[in-house]
Amino acid sequence: MAIVVQKFGGTSVANAEKIKRAAQRVIQRVKEGYSVVVVASARGQQTDELIADAHELNPEPPERELDQLLSTGEIQSVSLFAMALHAEGHNAISFSGGQIRMMTDGVHTKARIKSIDASRIQKELDAGKVVLVAGFQGIDDDGNITTLGRGGSDTSAVALAAAMKAEECEIFTDVDGVYTTDPRIFKDAVKIDKISYDEMLEMASMGAGVMHSRSIELGKKCDVRIHVRNSGNENKGTIITSEEEAQMEEVVVSGATIQKDMAKIGLVNVDHKPGNAARVFSKLAEARVLVNDIIQTEVGPKKANLTFTVGSSDLKAAKKAIDDVRDTVGCEDIFVHDNIAEVSIIGVGMRSHYGIAEKMFTSLFKAGVNIDLITTSEIRISCVVEKKDAERALIAVCKAFDLDKPVGKRKKYPRK
Amino acid sequence: MAIVVQKFGGTSVANAEKIKRAAQRVIQRVKEGYSVVVVASARGQQTDELIADAHELNPEPPERELDQLLSTGEIQSVSLFAMALHAEGHNAISFSGGQIRMMTDGVHTKARIKSIDASRIQKELDAGKVVLVAGFQGIDDDGNITTLGRGGSDTSAVALAAAMKAEECEIFTDVDGVYTTDPRIFKDAVKIDKISYDEMLEMASMGAGVMHSRSIELGKKCDVRIHVRNSGNENKGTIITSEEEAQMEEVVVSGATIQKDMAKIGLVNVDHKPGNAARVFSKLAEARVLVNDIIQTEVGPKKANLTFTVGSSDLKAAKKAIDDVRDTVGCEDIFVHDNIAEVSIIGVGMRSHYGIAEKMFTSLFKAGVNIDLITTSEIRISCVVEKKDAERALIAVCKAFDLDKPVGKRKKYPRK
Repeated sequence: MAIVVQKFGGTSVANAEKIKRAAQRVIQRVKEGYSVVVVASARGQQTDELIADAHELNPEPPERELDQLLSTGEIQSVSLFAMALHAEGHNAISFSGGQIRMMTDGVHTKARIKSIDASRIQKELDAGKVVLVAGFQGIDDDGNITTLGRGGSDTSAVALAAAMKAEECEIFTDVDGVYTTDPRIFKDAVKIDKISYDEMLEMASMGAGVMHSRSIELGKKCDVRIHVRNSGNENKGTIITSEEEAQMEEVVVSGATIQKDMAKIGLVNVDHKPGNAARVFSKLAEARVLVNDIIQTEVGPKKANLTFTVGSSDLKAAKKAIDDVRDTVGCEDIFVHDNIAEVSIIGVGMRSHYGIAEKMFTSLFKAGVNIDLITTSEIRISCVVEKKDAERALIAVCKAFDLDKPVGKRKKYPRK
Repeated sequence: MAIVVQKFGGTSVANAEKIKRAAQRVIQRVKEGYSVVVVASARGQQTDELIADAHELNPEPPERELDQLLSTGEIQSVSLFAMALHAEGHNAISFSGGQIRMMTDGVHTKARIKSIDASRIQKELDAGKVVLVAGFQGIDDDGNITTLGRGGSDTSAVALAAAMKAEECEIFTDVDGVYTTDPRIFKDAVKIDKISYDEMLEMASMGAGVMHSRSIELGKKCDVRIHVRNSGNENKGTIITSEEEAQMEEVVVSGATIQKDMAKIGLVNVDHKPGNAARVFSKLAEARVLVNDIIQTEVGPKKANLTFTVGSSDLKAAKKAIDDVRDTVGCEDIFVHDNIAEVSIIGVGMRSHYGIAEKMFTSLFKAGVNIDLITTSEIRISCVVEKKDAERALIAVCKAFDLDKPVGKRKKYPRK
């Protein structure tokens, strides 16, 4: 029997009424003849409440214990969800991550999934049960509970879809899908029907909060068709899929993103010799700082300036890491600028079309936005701007690339 | 290193402040040189809240899922408790029942412990850690979570004390120990210093709510010294121990109890032939009805009346079970009386002293209380009375046996 994985986020299971509604989505699939695996997050604000409880006792709770604590939220959701299905006459069984041997590495609070015991789940599906799995969690080889980081339930769902060879992984949320940009800033943003894994990854890493990037990486690796859709209606959502399928309509720019809380750190006159950049960034990695953009420019024959951006929340840790390494790399001065934001456009079509960068810069210029730094990937162009200009910049870019229009009505660009 | 097990109930870990206070009790023992194993219940009213959440979704939630849900409360307590110990500079590690392989039979909501992986705990104790174990829960052979029933954390604690060969199992509560009777009814009740397992078992099964009877049974079986004490002060509490140790002072009546919410069911003119009583009570056992007292009297050569008492909460199930079996045993009529209560006195000394029963009946007669049924065990005499008379009956009995006086000042009875 074909399998579908359905993932419900915290808002979709926040209370009894919402769990009952979510259960109906499951039952609908069961009636269509699918075997259903459900992944749920902790109810509503529960994870935040548990973190607050922890901090009341210990401002820096040991991560193993934090994982042990937080994992309970998802277990509560799935056992309650199972009860709701039983109440509707459907047999269901809930599992913690440990119970289905969702094995992870031992990195507490940011673990990665290594394997899943698909046979245990298959046995229950074969017995006609809906299988519910607590999201966000696994265990390490010693049986310690590990969590996958914020948004980790998406990753649990995609990993289960891969392990169970599911036809589709439905991610239920409170919006209709992935939008061309944040509709809170650009109100005319439109829903994206199909997007490739790579584009979605860039969107996610550039601040589009819909899905956890690891889950998309995993989806790409295991070729899991992901369907982001609204738990409150029957609308088709956004399909995240292979580039071949996503690019049928030759979209040039799929979406635009904004990252508001960014900071920039510059190392001035670093000794320009092999290994110095590695020293800096391995120190930052050690401090678990996520670096966004890196720009290095030569200053004379033996010196270079090294600039990078990080999320504001990582600034303190980044600054400390840099202070530790500055003498080693012969850095003469350090500057920090934490009132910046980054506006990006993303699209696989950039690879094959001309004039995209120019269009972006022109639109920002016309909007009176000064560009501080520019970085690009094969399918993304990002401009760092002053935080005060950020929303205006995003709107200008969205209009320039017709991100308020359906794909077919957008301006065409010449092919390379 | 000597090991002590400390168990904290829900009220002792209800909030951050209380967890911090409980942590101090642990640290005190660590400083005394003990290895400490902590068992904690779910915080405050959390178990009740989770049950209410479950019932909102399903009036009769499947027991496996209920166990899965409820087990999270204790896991939260112990992980938070571990954080509090870390904050005080003490290394600590928390475990769910499953993580230390607290193996149980598969009876959901009322499981029994079969074994514990003591080596896992010992390893952590040897590494200098305080080990915290979520009470009330275990797993069955298939990894399903099973819970031990209400008050099951006491059982977890005693089982751990036995497995770890602990010097003592401290049960922290919000009173100073076990009292001769319920001080809410007889305000002059005094704390019992030492009581034997058998007496405590009778007290517990006769309504003294201090400890879970299974935990006392287990304590007796494994010879675990149990110390029931107040988490809010340093007073010595009540030691539950072997009869030899407890009976140093030759107490005749150790305590008196009252069970208020009782019901009586009578089967009139049952066929008096072998196997009929077994049929009735196996049917009740099947329905998981806890039967208190059983009284059978002959009525003529071929008929007997069979009367038994149950808790009011079991009455519905008991009635249904009896309806199912009545024709098989030839019962001519059934009566139900649900406004009864049971007053009991308990004491190992009854075995070796005269005049105890007489004293009890006389005290009730003088208080104008009519006795409906009388049942006895080797160390207990119980009288079923009208519910309206129950508190008056208890007070009369307590006064008659000097349960408001220290052991040395009580009236002596002649030895058999």
